[in-house]
Amino acid sequence: MRIGMIGIGRMGMPMAQHLMKAGHELIAYNRTREKAASLSGRVTTAASPAEAARDVDALLTMLADDRAVEAMVLGEAGEPGVLSALRRGAIHISCSTISVGLARRLAAAHAAAEHGYVSAPVFGRPEAAQAQKLWVVAAGSSALLDRCQPIFEAVGQGVFRVGDDPAMANAVKLAGNFTIAAMLETLGEAFAFIRKAGVDPQELLAVLNTALYRSPIYENYGRLIADGRYEPAGFALRLGLKDVRLALEASDAVAAPMPLASLLHDHLLSQVARGRGEADWAAVAEVSARNAGL
Amino acid sequence: MRIGMIGIGRMGMPMAQHLMKAGHELIAYNRTREKAASLSGRVTTAASPAEAARDVDALLTMLADDRAVEAMVLGEAGEPGVLSALRRGAIHISCSTISVGLARRLAAAHAAAEHGYVSAPVFGRPEAAQAQKLWVVAAGSSALLDRCQPIFEAVGQGVFRVGDDPAMANAVKLAGNFTIAAMLETLGEAFAFIRKAGVDPQELLAVLNTALYRSPIYENYGRLIADGRYEPAGFALRLGLKDVRLALEASDAVAAPMPLASLLHDHLLSQVARGRGEADWAAVAEVSARNAGL
Amino acid sequence: MRIGMIGIGRMGMPMAQHLMKAGHELIAYNRTREKAASLSGRVTTAASPAEAARDVDALLTMLADDRAVEAMVLGEAGEPGVLSALRRGAIHISCSTISVGLARRLAAAHAAAEHGYVSAPVFGRPEAAQAQKLWVVAAGSSALLDRCQPIFEAVGQGVFRVGDDPAMANAVKLAGNFTIAAMLETLGEAFAFIRKAGVDPQELLAVLNTALYRSPIYENYGRLIADGRYEPAGFALRLGLKDVRLALEASDAVAAPMPLASLLHDHLLSQVARGRGEADWAAVAEVSARNAGL
Amino acid sequence: MRIGMIGIGRMGMPMAQHLMKAGHELIAYNRTREKAASLSGRVTTAASPAEAARDVDALLTMLADDRAVEAMVLGEAGEPGVLSALRRGAIHISCSTISVGLARRLAAAHAAAEHGYVSAPVFGRPEAAQAQKLWVVAAGSSALLDRCQPIFEAVGQGVFRVGDDPAMANAVKLAGNFTIAAMLETLGEAFAFIRKAGVDPQELLAVLNTALYRSPIYENYGRLIADGRYEPAGFALRLGLKDVRLALEASDAVAAPMPLASLLHDHLLSQVARGRGEADWAAVAEVSARNAGL
Repeated sequence: MRIGMIGIGRMGMPMAQHLMKAGHELIAYNRTREKAASLSGRVTTAASPAEAARDVDALLTMLADDRAVEAMVLGEAGEPGVLSALRRGAIHISCSTISVGLARRLAAAHAAAEHGYVSAPVFGRPEAAQAQKLWVVAAGSSALLDRCQPIFEAVGQGVFRVGDDPAMANAVKLAGNFTIAAMLETLGEAFAFIRKAGVDPQELLAVLNTALYRSPIYENYGRLIADGRYEPAGFALRLGLKDVRLALEASDAVAAPMPLASLLHDHLLSQVARGRGEADWAAVAEVSARNAGL
Repeated sequence: MRIGMIGIGRMGMPMAQHLMKAGHELIAYNRTREKAASLSGRVTTAASPAEAARDVDALLTMLADDRAVEAMVLGEAGEPGVLSALRRGAIHISCSTISVGLARRLAAAHAAAEHGYVSAPVFGRPEAAQAQKLWVVAAGSSALLDRCQPIFEAVGQGVFRVGDDPAMANAVKLAGNFTIAAMLETLGEAFAFIRKAGVDPQELLAVLNTALYRSPIYENYGRLIADGRYEPAGFALRLGLKDVRLALEASDAVAAPMPLASLLHDHLLSQVARGRGEADWAAVAEVSARNAGL
Repeated sequence: MRIGMIGIGRMGMPMAQHLMKAGHELIAYNRTREKAASLSGRVTTAASPAEAARDVDALLTMLADDRAVEAMVLGEAGEPGVLSALRRGAIHISCSTISVGLARRLAAAHAAAEHGYVSAPVFGRPEAAQAQKLWVVAAGSSALLDRCQPIFEAVGQGVFRVGDDPAMANAVKLAGNFTIAAMLETLGEAFAFIRKAGVDPQELLAVLNTALYRSPIYENYGRLIADGRYEPAGFALRLGLKDVRLALEASDAVAAPMPLASLLHDHLLSQVARGRGEADWAAVAEVSARNAGL
Repeated sequence: MRIGMIGIGRMGMPMAQHLMKAGHELIAYNRTREKAASLSGRVTTAASPAEAARDVDALLTMLADDRAVEAMVLGEAGEPGVLSALRRGAIHISCSTISVGLARRLAAAHAAAEHGYVSAPVFGRPEAAQAQKLWVVAAGSSALLDRCQPIFEAVGQGVFRVGDDPAMANAVKLAGNFTIAAMLETLGEAFAFIRKAGVDPQELLAVLNTALYRSPIYENYGRLIADGRYEPAGFALRLGLKDVRLALEASDAVAAPMPLASLLHDHLLSQVARGRGEADWAAVAEVSARNAGL
C-alpha cells in the first residue's frame, strides 16, 4: 500500500521502518524534518502534512496528544487540517493515545468527507516498537479493519479488534493505561509501608514477583520503585497524568465513577505540582513515601 | 521432628500431610475433631490444644484470624493458652495471616517463656497447599529460621526470609494481600468503565492478559470479574476485608498512609454491608458496577 | 445605565426587576420569549441576543453553563455571538457559574474587541435573588468594577472584589460551591453512620446545629438529609456535579490536587448514573446510605 | 451530690469548679497531684483513684483516650480499676471522647457490678468549659440520665439525650468531630486551590463567612487556615487523628463506609508522620498545600 505517515518520533520511527520492510511505500512527515529524513528505504519525505496525506491509501498518525492530533487533522487557527488533503475512500488510522471524545469527532469528520477512520492505539514502548512487538488495539467497521490488517501486522505482534465504533479502541487503551497507573500506586503504597515497617524493599519485590505476579510489567516497575530510580523516564509522569485525565474524562462521559483513577490523578498531579512531571511515571510512588515522612 | 499442629482446615490439612510425607511426626488438633482424625500417616489426634503442644519440637498454628490465634495461644476467659504447655526451647511457627501487633505480642510472650517464635504466613490457596506449592514468608532470628527450614521446605516450593523481627513476615504478607485487593479494585473499575463504553469485557480481558500482564493471578481474577462470577468463593470477601483492615492497622502504626487501602476497605465494607461477605473477594468489582448504574 | 440582559430565568428574572427598580433601563432577551415578556417596568424585549447587546452600556449574562455562555457570546456553528454586537467600551458582566478557562477566553475576546469584561458570579438561590440578598463575587480591573458597582448593588446585598483577573471570581465561586458539596458529603456519611449505630438522625441534627455550626446553610441541608427529602430540588444534583467538575478542571489547571473534590465528583456521578441527577444535590447523601446497606 | 472526679486537666478543672459552684461535694483525683490540689472549694484531694470512687453517688471521668480510661476503670497489669471501688448503685459518668467499643465494655462491666453507667462526652474547648458553655451529649437509661441531669446542667449550657444505649453518645460525639475534621480538609483544599489560582486567601475567607456559612466554627478555623497559623494548638492534630480513627472503627463495626473519614485519616496520619502531631489539627490543611507544591 501507499501509506502516509505523520509523526516520526520514538514510536513512529520504528513503526515506519517495519511498514517499509513489509513492502509498503511511505510518505513521511514530521514537524522536525530531520527525523523523517533519517528514514531509509522506500520513503519520500513530505514537505507538509498535506503532502503526506495526498493520494495515499492510508494515513497513519502517531502524535503526542489530543491537541496535536486535532490541529493536524481538523486544522487550527483557520488553517485546514490534513483531512482536507485525503482523497475519498482513504483511511485514516489514528495510533495516538487520544481521548474518546476526539476519536468520535474524527470519525464523524472523516465520515462526512467519505474517508474511512480507524482508531488503532498501541501498547508497547519504543523498544517494543523496534522489535515489532507492539500490540494493536483496533476499532472500526470490519471492512476497514480488514483493509488495515496488513498494516497492523507489519508493526505489531498481534491485533485486538474491540468493536465497531472506533472510539472503543481508545477506551480500551485508556483502561489499560489506567490499570498500569493503578499498579504503580499500589506498589508505591506497599513499598512505603514496608519500608516504614523496617523491611528491605527488595524482599517484598522478590515475594511479589515470585509468589504472586510473575509478570514482566510488575518486575520492571517493581524494580524501579524498590530502587527509587525514576530517571531516565521510560514514560514521563506528565504523560501518564494526561492518560489518567483522559480515562476520567471518558468514564465521566459514560457515568462510570472511577475513584481509584481519581486517586491516581491527584497523586500524579501533585508530582507535577512539585516539579516531577519529567520523571518516569513510577515516581508516583514518591507521593506515598513523602506522605509517610520518608 | 515432632511437630504439633493446630488448625487442620482447608490449608492446614494438606500442609499436615506434606509434613508427614517429609518424615515428621505429627500431633494434630482441630476444633472439630473429625478433621484431625481424617489425617492419615504418622499422626496422633490430640484431644486438646495443650496435648498438641506438649513435648513437641515445633508447634505450627494455622487458624482463621487474630481472635482465634490469640485465644488459642495466649488463652482467654481465664483459661491458659497452649503457650503454657510448650516446653522450653520449643518453637511456635505461626502460619496464620494475623496482625503485626499480635505477632509482636506473641513474640514477646514466647520470649518470656523461653520459647522460640517465628512468623511464617504463606501465599497460596488450598490447591497450592495440596500441590506443595505454597510460598512461605518467614521472619525471626536466623538460628530459629534455620531450624524451621525443613518444615518450610516440606509445605512449600520456596521460602522468603524477610527479617529478624517475626512481625516483618506479617507485614509482608499483608502488603502482598493488599496488592491483590488493589488489583481487584483496578479491574472492577476498568471493567465497569469499559462496559458502559459499550465494549465487550472479554476484549479488555484479552488485552490485559496478552498485551500487558501475562500473569496467572490477573488471568484468574480478570476472568471472574469479566464474567461476574463470584460464587463459589475462592477467598471470601469478608476475609479479604479482614486482611485490608490489618494492613491499614499496621500502616497506621508506622505512620504510612495508604489511601488506596482505605478505598479498598470502604468498598469491601460496603459489600459486607450489602450481604456479599461470603462471595469471592473479586466481588468488590460489584461496587464499581453498582456505582455506574450497571 | 442602559443594560442588556440575556437569561431571564429563575435567577435572571428577579435580578432584572431589581435593576429596573434601581433606575436602569433594560433590554432583555431570553430563549423562550415569554419569560422576557413577563418583565414589567422600563424594559424592552429583544427579538434576538444581538438586539440586547447593541447600544448598551453593560451586557449582563446569566445562563446555565459553559456551553450556553460560549455559544451566546462567542458564537457557534458559524453564527457570530453577541460579542460582535457590543459597541466599543461596553462592559460584559458574566454572572453565570462558568469555568475559569471560559472566563479567560471571554476576557481575551472582549479585550481584543475593546470591550470591558468582568466576571461576577453570585451566591444565593432564586429566593435570595428575589429578596435582593445575593452576594456578588466580582473580579476585573478596578476601573471596570467601579463602573459596575451600581449594578452589583442593585441585585445583591454585598460585593466581594477578589482580584484584577476576571477568572479569579470564577475560581472563588467554584471554591465556594465545592465547600457546600463537601458539607453535603460530610453530612451524608455522618448520618449513614449514625443511623447504623441506632441513633435517631434528628438527634445528630440537633447537636450539629446547636453545639457546633449554628449556620443556616447547615440547618437547611442537614434537615434535608436527616429527613431524606430530596424533591423538589433547590439545586439539581447534575448542576452540582457540573460545578464540582469545573472546580476539578480549574484546580487541575493550576496543579492543586483536591482529593475531596474527586470524591464528591465520584459520588455525584454515581447518582447521575443511577438516575438521580434531577434530585436536590443533597441526595449525594444517598450514596453513603446505599453503601451502608441502608 | 457527692461526686468523685478523675482527670483534673484543661477540661476537667473548670468542670470541677462548676460542679462545686452548683453545690456538689467533690473528691478529686489527678495523676499529677498538684492539679487536683489547686482546686478551691468543697473538695477533697484523693490520694488514689480508688479513694475518688469510694462512697460517691457519681464518678465522673475526663481522661485522654481509650487506654487511659480502660486502665483507670477496668484496671491493668493485674491492678484492679476504680470499678471495684464503686459502691453498688453508684453511677459512672464517662465524659472522655472514647470508642464506641470501650463504652460498650464499660457499660457491661458496670452492669455486672450493679453500677449505673452513662456516656456523656462534651463538645467545647477549655474556654467553653470555663464559661460553663459546654454541650453535653448523653446516653443511657432515662432513669440514670435523670439522676445525672443536675451534673450536666452544672457543667454545660445544654444536654442532648441521644439514646438508651450509652455507646450512642460516643457515636454522636465521634460523628460530630468527624464533621469538623471534614470542614478542615474542605477548607485546606479550597485555600490551596485558590492560592494557586492567584487569589488572596482572605478574599475567600470573607466570602465563606459572609455569603455562605456565618458560623463561628468556620470563622475560627477558616482564619487559622487562611493565615497558616497552627501554633499554639487549640486541639492537637494527633488527638484529631485519634478521634477520626475511632469514627472509622465505629463505622467499620456497623458496616457504614465513610470514605471522607478515610481521606481525613490518611491526611492527618501523614502530618503525624511528618512531625506535625502537636500542631493544631487545622494543620491538616498543610497536606493540601504541600500536594499543590506550595
